[in-house]
Amino acid sequence: MTARLEGTARTEALATLTGWDEVEGRDAIRKVFTFKDFSQAFAFMTRVALKAEVMDHHPEWFNVYNKVDVTLTTHDADGLSQKDIDLARAMEDYAA
Amino acid sequence: MTARLEGTARTEALATLTGWDEVEGRDAIRKVFTFKDFSQAFAFMTRVALKAEVMDHHPEWFNVYNKVDVTLTTHDADGLSQKDIDLARAMEDYAA
Repeated sequence: MTARLEGTARTEALATLTGWDEVEGRDAIRKVFTFKDFSQAFAFMTRVALKAEVMDHHPEWFNVYNKVDVTLTTHDADGLSQKDIDLARAMEDYAA
Repeated sequence: MTARLEGTARTEALATLTGWDEVEGRDAIRKVFTFKDFSQAFAFMTRVALKAEVMDHHPEWFNVYNKVDVTLTTHDADGLSQKDIDLARAMEDYAA
């Protein structure tokens, strides 16, 4: 069981992220990444996929052409955990 | 402008596909591919991405762990075209 982020720990963890919104009705975060074209979007997805596999923590994501719409949550924690924060920060790095 | 599939040509083209449903309210087709795990799902997505880039025709797709939910349509045709049929068949091959 992964620990769910709550209270101050949750607030502080979310403050380290840029551009993520809390999802309505779910304890999850979401960000839409926009790239120049499909090639760049899929290159990003490939880096994220490798990271996700290493972490054994995977995103929910939707892609069409140059957009990647990502939702992160931890099923095992029934909400947001530190794993989501770590994966979100890795995504920000890869998209930078 | 890509030609939109209509009438008998449309019916015959769709008959060559396996497991695709027509999308309600859009001239598009959809199939959910299920794999053993994320690694296999993303390997499939990578092959599709290369094919899509060669065709210059891209899917709308959603992935979570071992599932890839694909919708195909041709914006340039304002509906289903032969490109969608070709990409759908390539996806079936890769998933086989």
